[in-house]
Amino acid sequence: MRPLFHPSIDDVRLEAVLHALSDPERAAIFVQIAAAGCPQTCSTFASVGDRAIPKSSLSQHFKVLREAGLIRSERQGVEMHNTSRCAELDARFPGLIAAIISAHAKESGREPQPA
Amino acid sequence: MRPLFHPSIDDVRLEAVLHALSDPERAAIFVQIAAAGCPQTCSTFASVGDRAIPKSSLSQHFKVLREAGLIRSERQGVEMHNTSRCAELDARFPGLIAAIISAHAKESGREPQPA
Repeated sequence: MRPLFHPSIDDVRLEAVLHALSDPERAAIFVQIAAAGCPQTCSTFASVGDRAIPKSSLSQHFKVLREAGLIRSERQGVEMHNTSRCAELDARFPGLIAAIISAHAKESGREPQPA
Repeated sequence: MRPLFHPSIDDVRLEAVLHALSDPERAAIFVQIAAAGCPQTCSTFASVGDRAIPKSSLSQHFKVLREAGLIRSERQGVEMHNTSRCAELDARFPGLIAAIISAHAKESGREPQPA
């Protein structure tokens, strides 16, 4: 089995981060991983909202997130455990991930906004 | 001449903003417009850094930035004047554009970073 590629935090590129999160499904997956206190398996994400995501797309989404430097994935038996790299990312690009997560929450109406 | 389309700020989508700025040439153009105190004409951007940008690509870049809600363009005679919509964007997605501009500056080494 090929080792999973994770870029060093210093090699993480802004364009790759923005590209990865410009897809609404990937952004929703990332936000959920970032919010979770424990590693999330891929099968947690068989749907996003009320939409089913095919397994092949899901696997591609995780690859893009991982190679952009947004998540760390570890194979554990037949499952893949994913955690966000928020702390490292915040050191590299201060405030960026928090602002994107907050914008995502505002747009998806998950946080009540002041009138 | 067709009118230029500018989305209402409430219709600006996070995914469109991130997609628009995930292209390094477009990000460089946007950052320069955002930094400028006065409207920038398209011809200001015939090159980004040391790379020439063909006129057709430039026109496409401005269209993507405009339709994502990042800039406002106005035809003035044969020229197009462009200004950023940073203030409106900051009200819609607090901190997002500032964090992206700051990440862009850090990555392109335009701002000295603390050791």
